Amino acid sequence: MAQRHLDPTNPMAGPAPTGDALAGYLRAQATEFLRALRLHRETGSGANGSEGSVDAARALRRSARRISASLHTFQSLLDPDWCEAMRPELAWVSGTLAMEHAYTARLERLLSALHRLSGSTAFPAQSGPAAGSRAAGAAPVPKTAAPKAGAQPNPSATQERGNLTVGAAKAGALLDRQLTLARTRAHSTALQALGSSRFHAVADKVAVLASEVPLTTTAAGTDLRPLATAAEERLRDAVSALPLVTAGSPYNAAALVHGLSPDTVPHPQDAPWHQVRLLLRLHRYAREAVRGEPNGDAVVDLRLLSAGQALNRHRDASEAAAAAAQAARTPRIAPATAYALGVLHADQRHEVEAARFAFQQCWQKEVVRTQ
Amino acid sequence: MAQRHLDPTNPMAGPAPTGDALAGYLRAQATEFLRALRLHRETGSGANGSEGSVDAARALRRSARRISASLHTFQSLLDPDWCEAMRPELAWVSGTLAMEHAYTARLERLLSALHRLSGSTAFPAQSGPAAGSRAAGAAPVPKTAAPKAGAQPNPSATQERGNLTVGAAKAGALLDRQLTLARTRAHSTALQALGSSRFHAVADKVAVLASEVPLTTTAAGTDLRPLATAAEERLRDAVSALPLVTAGSPYNAAALVHGLSPDTVPHPQDAPWHQVRLLLRLHRYAREAVRGEPNGDAVVDLRLLSAGQALNRHRDASEAAAAAAQAARTPRIAPATAYALGVLHADQRHEVEAARFAFQQCWQKEVVRTQ
Repeated sequence: MAQRHLDPTNPMAGPAPTGDALAGYLRAQATEFLRALRLHRETGSGANGSEGSVDAARALRRSARRISASLHTFQSLLDPDWCEAMRPELAWVSGTLAMEHAYTARLERLLSALHRLSGSTAFPAQSGPAAGSRAAGAAPVPKTAAPKAGAQPNPSATQERGNLTVGAAKAGALLDRQLTLARTRAHSTALQALGSSRFHAVADKVAVLASEVPLTTTAAGTDLRPLATAAEERLRDAVSALPLVTAGSPYNAAALVHGLSPDTVPHPQDAPWHQVRLLLRLHRYAREAVRGEPNGDAVVDLRLLSAGQALNRHRDASEAAAAAAQAARTPRIAPATAYALGVLHADQRHEVEAARFAFQQCWQKEVVRTQ
Repeated sequence: MAQRHLDPTNPMAGPAPTGDALAGYLRAQATEFLRALRLHRETGSGANGSEGSVDAARALRRSARRISASLHTFQSLLDPDWCEAMRPELAWVSGTLAMEHAYTARLERLLSALHRLSGSTAFPAQSGPAAGSRAAGAAPVPKTAAPKAGAQPNPSATQERGNLTVGAAKAGALLDRQLTLARTRAHSTALQALGSSRFHAVADKVAVLASEVPLTTTAAGTDLRPLATAAEERLRDAVSALPLVTAGSPYNAAALVHGLSPDTVPHPQDAPWHQVRLLLRLHRYAREAVRGEPNGDAVVDLRLLSAGQALNRHRDASEAAAAAAQAARTPRIAPATAYALGVLHADQRHEVEAARFAFQQCWQKEVVRTQ
């Protein structure tokens, strides 16, 4: 770690950023939060949410996550009572706003996988009973199938022995119904939340934060970097506890172990990976604060970005697999539907394994580079 | 290729083996065929076939394959009419004898996968309705689950929300019934074949071959090596047509493309790999004949052996996946059973993909070594 100060590309190098830099970062995030909130109110919030309101909700979540993360990492530089009151409220805001998007993305992922597995360019569910509910719910659905490798669709064959393709179509319609319903509920919940007095109290506190950051008296002279380094160490510790040797060995089949056991939804083996995903985010935001770059995209660390993307993919596939397993428990479904959901579940668990492999590859590169 | 003659470890080096060497190899294989046939008759052939009769059948297939392969590769050194009459008969013998073993291995593979996927050490089907039929059919079943990576069985949880585990148990029982029935039929067919006049005619011809190989007049002066090299070239050509770049990229998800399309049983994308498996075997047997090593195990080429094992695993997983898909088409099965069969199908298609990756890794090593 001592060598880092000699590395000009290292974010931890240069003149010591102190509490003032943290205050600047927090003010910028608070301003962004208020801007996104104004935008969200202007772009409307109907169930058929416009592109603008989706962007605004994303920007709200983005700044809420960064403020919350900074309160966690740089806690010792901030008023403790204020921190303690603020953090759960910010988590509630970003968590509530995230649900609608999560259901949309999950449905899109599952339907896209069904396309690929069916090898059909025209997925029957799109013109079937599901189409109506999707029009009402406005879920973005990929227009064409995207087979991963050399698929040769054979549309003429879908007419004969169509048992399993009909199964895939029914599975798609079932998932569409269930996830669209869940998303519609999440949308209502988010709207209610945004109109609640609880949210107004959060927004008021963020408005104050935009001009006045409650630093401790010693914060202005305190170096941020040891705290950011501690966040990085927490990430490294959590990563070192992951089964990376297994993850780095392709086709280890670990993600599908217990795929048919009754307590796989959610899958307990995924938890440490989800935890690393959160710690990686804390590490990334701490770097932003230290570098004084509230707009994180300005300097992208590609390695860190890829590792984060792998963990996002891990989380998404894990939740999609759970949704497929959950849908298979719907009473009175046809065996062909259940079969298709079984294939889909295993496919997404395979994606979970692939994401772990991708993370391991990113992480190995990083270790080689920094050693 | 010219450098090969300088390489002391190369089977193609040394004094030229000619038709005499081929005759020696064929005589040895014919003798082995007769020995195995005698052993098979001595060890009995009941449905509950003893270990000895299983070994004897394996030895019969082994020598039949080698004679048949030599007739193919070294055709130009042998009487053409005799070759043409003999080859389909040998293929019939080894094909007929292989079926019983194939069904046994397929059931074992599928039950073992269900164990792993259920995360249970005591697979319910073993004490369920399937146990009776298995006892009658004497399929070897693994006694304990063998989870691939860090599985933590949770037996207490199997009592609650047990829907899918019950599904796995029912899927196991269904596969057990279907594959045990198929194996019993294959056993009867093999017994009938061994007692038929058609088989006796083959055995008589092999008995003649054990002392008298019908070489052409020029065979004694003809070098076997160009013919063996041609067999190797056919293998290389077929391998170069395989999608090895895709196969070498882990988690390419290619094997499960069309996993839910109606025409996936058998999977058309597997055919070129099955073809390479056969060509690899022809290459291996041609090397044995050239080296005068009828007992192939004497000098094992580990690379070739691993590549062949990967292709065997590819074939086995492909057929097991097809059996799971086929079982899912059984009328009136429960949705939970169908779901388990879907997960199982996808799991075996992952195995197909993993086997392709393993083959690609072996093959890359070989290319690096010989270049």
